[in-house]
Amino acid sequence: MKNTIGNLFTVTLFGESHGEAIGVVLDGVPAGIEINQELFEHQMFLRKPKGTISTQRHETDEVKMISGIFENKTTGAPCCMLIENKDQHSKDYSKIKDIARPSHADYAANMKYNGYQDYRGGGHFSGRLTAPLVAAGAIAIQLLQSKGITMGTHVLQLHDIQDDAFSSNLNQCKEQIDRINQLEFALINEDKKDEMIQRIDDARMNLDAVGGVLETCVMGMPAGVGEPAFDSIESRLSHALFSIGAVKGVEFGLGFGFKDKMASEVNDEFEVVDDVIVTKTNNNGGINGGITNGMPLLFKTVVKPTASISRHQNSVNFKTNENVDLVIQGRHDPAIIHRARVVVDSMTAITLVDCLIERYGIVWFQGGQQ
Amino acid sequence: MKNTIGNLFTVTLFGESHGEAIGVVLDGVPAGIEINQELFEHQMFLRKPKGTISTQRHETDEVKMISGIFENKTTGAPCCMLIENKDQHSKDYSKIKDIARPSHADYAANMKYNGYQDYRGGGHFSGRLTAPLVAAGAIAIQLLQSKGITMGTHVLQLHDIQDDAFSSNLNQCKEQIDRINQLEFALINEDKKDEMIQRIDDARMNLDAVGGVLETCVMGMPAGVGEPAFDSIESRLSHALFSIGAVKGVEFGLGFGFKDKMASEVNDEFEVVDDVIVTKTNNNGGINGGITNGMPLLFKTVVKPTASISRHQNSVNFKTNENVDLVIQGRHDPAIIHRARVVVDSMTAITLVDCLIERYGIVWFQGGQQ
Amino acid sequence: MKNTIGNLFTVTLFGESHGEAIGVVLDGVPAGIEINQELFEHQMFLRKPKGTISTQRHETDEVKMISGIFENKTTGAPCCMLIENKDQHSKDYSKIKDIARPSHADYAANMKYNGYQDYRGGGHFSGRLTAPLVAAGAIAIQLLQSKGITMGTHVLQLHDIQDDAFSSNLNQCKEQIDRINQLEFALINEDKKDEMIQRIDDARMNLDAVGGVLETCVMGMPAGVGEPAFDSIESRLSHALFSIGAVKGVEFGLGFGFKDKMASEVNDEFEVVDDVIVTKTNNNGGINGGITNGMPLLFKTVVKPTASISRHQNSVNFKTNENVDLVIQGRHDPAIIHRARVVVDSMTAITLVDCLIERYGIVWFQGGQQ
Amino acid sequence: MKNTIGNLFTVTLFGESHGEAIGVVLDGVPAGIEINQELFEHQMFLRKPKGTISTQRHETDEVKMISGIFENKTTGAPCCMLIENKDQHSKDYSKIKDIARPSHADYAANMKYNGYQDYRGGGHFSGRLTAPLVAAGAIAIQLLQSKGITMGTHVLQLHDIQDDAFSSNLNQCKEQIDRINQLEFALINEDKKDEMIQRIDDARMNLDAVGGVLETCVMGMPAGVGEPAFDSIESRLSHALFSIGAVKGVEFGLGFGFKDKMASEVNDEFEVVDDVIVTKTNNNGGINGGITNGMPLLFKTVVKPTASISRHQNSVNFKTNENVDLVIQGRHDPAIIHRARVVVDSMTAITLVDCLIERYGIVWFQGGQQ
Repeated sequence: MKNTIGNLFTVTLFGESHGEAIGVVLDGVPAGIEINQELFEHQMFLRKPKGTISTQRHETDEVKMISGIFENKTTGAPCCMLIENKDQHSKDYSKIKDIARPSHADYAANMKYNGYQDYRGGGHFSGRLTAPLVAAGAIAIQLLQSKGITMGTHVLQLHDIQDDAFSSNLNQCKEQIDRINQLEFALINEDKKDEMIQRIDDARMNLDAVGGVLETCVMGMPAGVGEPAFDSIESRLSHALFSIGAVKGVEFGLGFGFKDKMASEVNDEFEVVDDVIVTKTNNNGGINGGITNGMPLLFKTVVKPTASISRHQNSVNFKTNENVDLVIQGRHDPAIIHRARVVVDSMTAITLVDCLIERYGIVWFQGGQQ
Repeated sequence: MKNTIGNLFTVTLFGESHGEAIGVVLDGVPAGIEINQELFEHQMFLRKPKGTISTQRHETDEVKMISGIFENKTTGAPCCMLIENKDQHSKDYSKIKDIARPSHADYAANMKYNGYQDYRGGGHFSGRLTAPLVAAGAIAIQLLQSKGITMGTHVLQLHDIQDDAFSSNLNQCKEQIDRINQLEFALINEDKKDEMIQRIDDARMNLDAVGGVLETCVMGMPAGVGEPAFDSIESRLSHALFSIGAVKGVEFGLGFGFKDKMASEVNDEFEVVDDVIVTKTNNNGGINGGITNGMPLLFKTVVKPTASISRHQNSVNFKTNENVDLVIQGRHDPAIIHRARVVVDSMTAITLVDCLIERYGIVWFQGGQQ
Repeated sequence: MKNTIGNLFTVTLFGESHGEAIGVVLDGVPAGIEINQELFEHQMFLRKPKGTISTQRHETDEVKMISGIFENKTTGAPCCMLIENKDQHSKDYSKIKDIARPSHADYAANMKYNGYQDYRGGGHFSGRLTAPLVAAGAIAIQLLQSKGITMGTHVLQLHDIQDDAFSSNLNQCKEQIDRINQLEFALINEDKKDEMIQRIDDARMNLDAVGGVLETCVMGMPAGVGEPAFDSIESRLSHALFSIGAVKGVEFGLGFGFKDKMASEVNDEFEVVDDVIVTKTNNNGGINGGITNGMPLLFKTVVKPTASISRHQNSVNFKTNENVDLVIQGRHDPAIIHRARVVVDSMTAITLVDCLIERYGIVWFQGGQQ
Repeated sequence: MKNTIGNLFTVTLFGESHGEAIGVVLDGVPAGIEINQELFEHQMFLRKPKGTISTQRHETDEVKMISGIFENKTTGAPCCMLIENKDQHSKDYSKIKDIARPSHADYAANMKYNGYQDYRGGGHFSGRLTAPLVAAGAIAIQLLQSKGITMGTHVLQLHDIQDDAFSSNLNQCKEQIDRINQLEFALINEDKKDEMIQRIDDARMNLDAVGGVLETCVMGMPAGVGEPAFDSIESRLSHALFSIGAVKGVEFGLGFGFKDKMASEVNDEFEVVDDVIVTKTNNNGGINGGITNGMPLLFKTVVKPTASISRHQNSVNFKTNENVDLVIQGRHDPAIIHRARVVVDSMTAITLVDCLIERYGIVWFQGGQQ
């Protein structure tokens, strides 16, 4: 379904970096939900480029609610949310029209669209399209919160600097989630912030860029959600997460850490605590057989270094089939990982709301008779 | 879509470990394809448990073609392929009916299905259901081969023993693929085989189990396949790969290796070689912006140690909500990774055929007028 | 999705008239439903050819439950139901291989499948494939009944002989539904039976065939089910109904009768009766704006005369591109409409269960904790 | 999928009558198609209310291309097309907020959305939402034309006044299609125009409304498109057609006319004419077994009289559960059928492009390398 994701709660994405506007249509929205404007704006704020560690392109990212909202409540009809593009530089993109920026979509897009793609600023492939995803995600996060489900994502690693991981103590973990959700630069151990910021700034000074690893935790998911085969929670979440441009790996629970372990070391034994069934460890990240088991969902995504750098790079002109020497002009992000965390939360929330509606029906989320 | 995967080329999976039979319905099959029986049986053979390093459950895994095949050619109608269950032990499963085996789906399934799931031998969650997937995959692999697309998967790491990675030299890589596809225990460096077998046997002797990492390479994919947003090749493949029971992580190209690299170290520069546009490195695993760029698709999946082990484990009875001491009886696999490789190939092929049909149409694959 | 229908409650159809077997995979089945064997067999019985007014091909149509049922209850895993083909005549079909039977799928299929289709007895296009649909439908009907939703279909018109329509009195209508569901030849006014049977027999004697119109009524559907745009109840139902081979028209409520009416004559005015909101008339067949309004769903389907007749007909050989004179050998149905009624009920039930699960969730239907 | 239709070529609809704007996202658009502005505007013009026989609400219906178009060519990225709402009367809708207009969606919507729906002017159910469908349809029609496929729809019957049907002579039929596509009031026999206009005007004077029957013909569809079971061409088209508000019946070929015919009267015999296989009659409307047979697609849709009339009608207040006497204020359409014809063409084209892409791939339609 190309630019639409979801079965019952669906997001359709459109727009290009230098077009008129970018946006989403969110469908399958339960009626009668009053939009939490504070949460909405907070999420949009978290994604916005800020300071010297992000691109200097400045957009207001003001979201216009085109449809599906009436008197600040959802109506049940599809919500189109539009963000106008304003800060488009008038520079002449046509000279880079046929040049493949390394690790960018330019060449692949040219092969797919026969040269008709909007090449300005990455077009439909621009990271700017994560803004409407965050807008859609804000509504999804609000829906989850209404059912006691909370989530958070932090920068577990930036280049070789590591943050602490989520605590295995559920109460502490809950506090960590609440805290990082308030932070612009989401860290469990905030002492690492200066070092990370410095590393990003160094990258910027070196006309380079860095990536890292995000860790996400979702608490409060009821057990029994997901499907055994092709719609495992892992399948659904990874599908959504890999739609984020720079994500090149996803792992659940111990993930690649399973590779050199014995089963006896990593099996999650069950136990009854206060009449509730839990697992002693959570190496499976809250998912058994593709289905939630009631423990926190835990997963990591790797975000590669931003491909746009201002250094000299070798490349090709795919129209003339010639090698060229390339310097990418423009305003680059030396890191996006600290902003990508809110995109990860958004795609996660969108996916989980869809899974929950499949199980409990849209009426579960819907507001009572007005 | 729960037990159906794919948009145009779809696989619907059914069956339980101890039911009548297991099987798939493969739909959207191009007509006029003569089934390559040798390939088909070879793939089924690769998945079968063999020797002491696998479960002692022995099934013939004979595939009955119920529909969609006529005079050994596909008709275009859905292919139902059925594998009867024969080696079901008559033991009394009812005593473990309400016990949650650690890291198994039992408890999550109980929460999902309210206790009505077929609990015998894992039921619909059994690894045995990968057999029909391999049958479907064999047809998909054949379709890819008809377009010059080949693939292979090897055991890159088993516990802490490492195999060589695929060569970055395309000709050598092609040879490696051809070679490992003939091997029961797929390794690029076959010198590692004895050590790995020994490690598995040790695990078995210790009533334990091991996992590892699989590396997959697909050569010959045309550039321009995949979608920018939610149907990126990474999204589609990961969705399929995470439907394999023991897979807990998927990464493309350098994957988690990107985390501590600078962009300048890992960007894949383009160059023209013999009039063909290639990248000098392939850290992005043949995918830019979600779309194939003509380079080999490269990805890794981590396979966790088999959860079924015969050791004492703590667990719970989820009916009585009591802690129990558990020893899982039965015939276990001390490792499945060497067999999982063919399941990975199968799910990969199924996914790629679907993506290719979306772009080129079913007529691209179809046999000429009879 | 070709041979799969439904969003959450899905039916995947496979098989050919003269293949090994025909069947369905029913997925998204709520767990813990005890199969009502009596209802199940009754539905299968209603579809079976019987007497001189149907084909003389005799099949036991015994349904084998391959998966998804355990101890006669649904497990939540996909139900594969298989019906073996037994009464295949060994006659040589190859001589009619390239002949297009008028109003049959032969020629269209040849163009689609390049000649590789299984041409024996209509192959995958055979009316015999309605048998597994009825099996799937029986489970759907049972699910609806568990929520107080009942339905029935009768032969409103056969050739030019008319039955009475469903009563606009809801109590009487309910009784009519209950009564016709017990009848092999479903009529509200059973006095018309002999005449209709005679008309079918006459057609048979004349080597000809007749069709007619079916009227369906569904009572008990809650108001508020369906979607405003592309998933209107009319869209969903018609999609399902037009998948039945001989159906060439579907109308809801007054349907084509609206064409020469003024709005003031046909608008359904609302009124409050016993504190319940109802409409005085039901010209819209229980659907406003694509959504149920709580009144009975009412629709009609036209079933064309069976295309297989034993008369001389002109046709072509599509391999040689020559005109031919054709007499179709074999066992034909002079009418199928009296059997099609149960297929209409089945497709209706399958569709409505899907719509209800989307709204109320699968847990609404599921059995309580075992 | 609620407000999204299509498998590979998809339309997502959003907006409300009195909201900010209405629009669509068209996805799966082949790249490199230069928008035919003349055709585009002509289609929009045909749908617009004009003269005394339509609502006096006047909208410019100017379509803003938000995305997916670059230098007037499609880029392959999703096309968002937006139409701002301008002529919204500021009248107080709140007094009719809880009143169910007869044969309107108000009550059903209230049951579905618990009273949160945007009730102003029908909200998301407004006929105004057909405007963006026509915009999407114009692009689909252009795609079909690029492959030699043309279509047209005319008012076969308005109230009890009949137009001629499409000619069975293919050349004449082609001319008829070309001619009616130029007409504001599409009739094959234009002599009927004055009488029909008069009938609509009479309805208007009587505060009433009329409906009728549309006949559609599509020429040039290749044989072999469509699917045998659930994705028959009839299923796909009817699904799309029943998403148009006032459509309550769809029939293919002879449709309900089959009911009192013998097979020998209506079977479509094949013959070879000038080396091409055709049928002598086209009672099946160009579809056998759900698949195109190369003959013109022929179908009829019944459009009920517009439900909005200014007469006194009985109704209910669904909040207080009381009977009320209702007079609907506002600007009504005494007929919409002459404008609905272009919506039928649009939904037909959207559906057929989707079916064709499934068979031939998106590359079939795509522009050559730029």
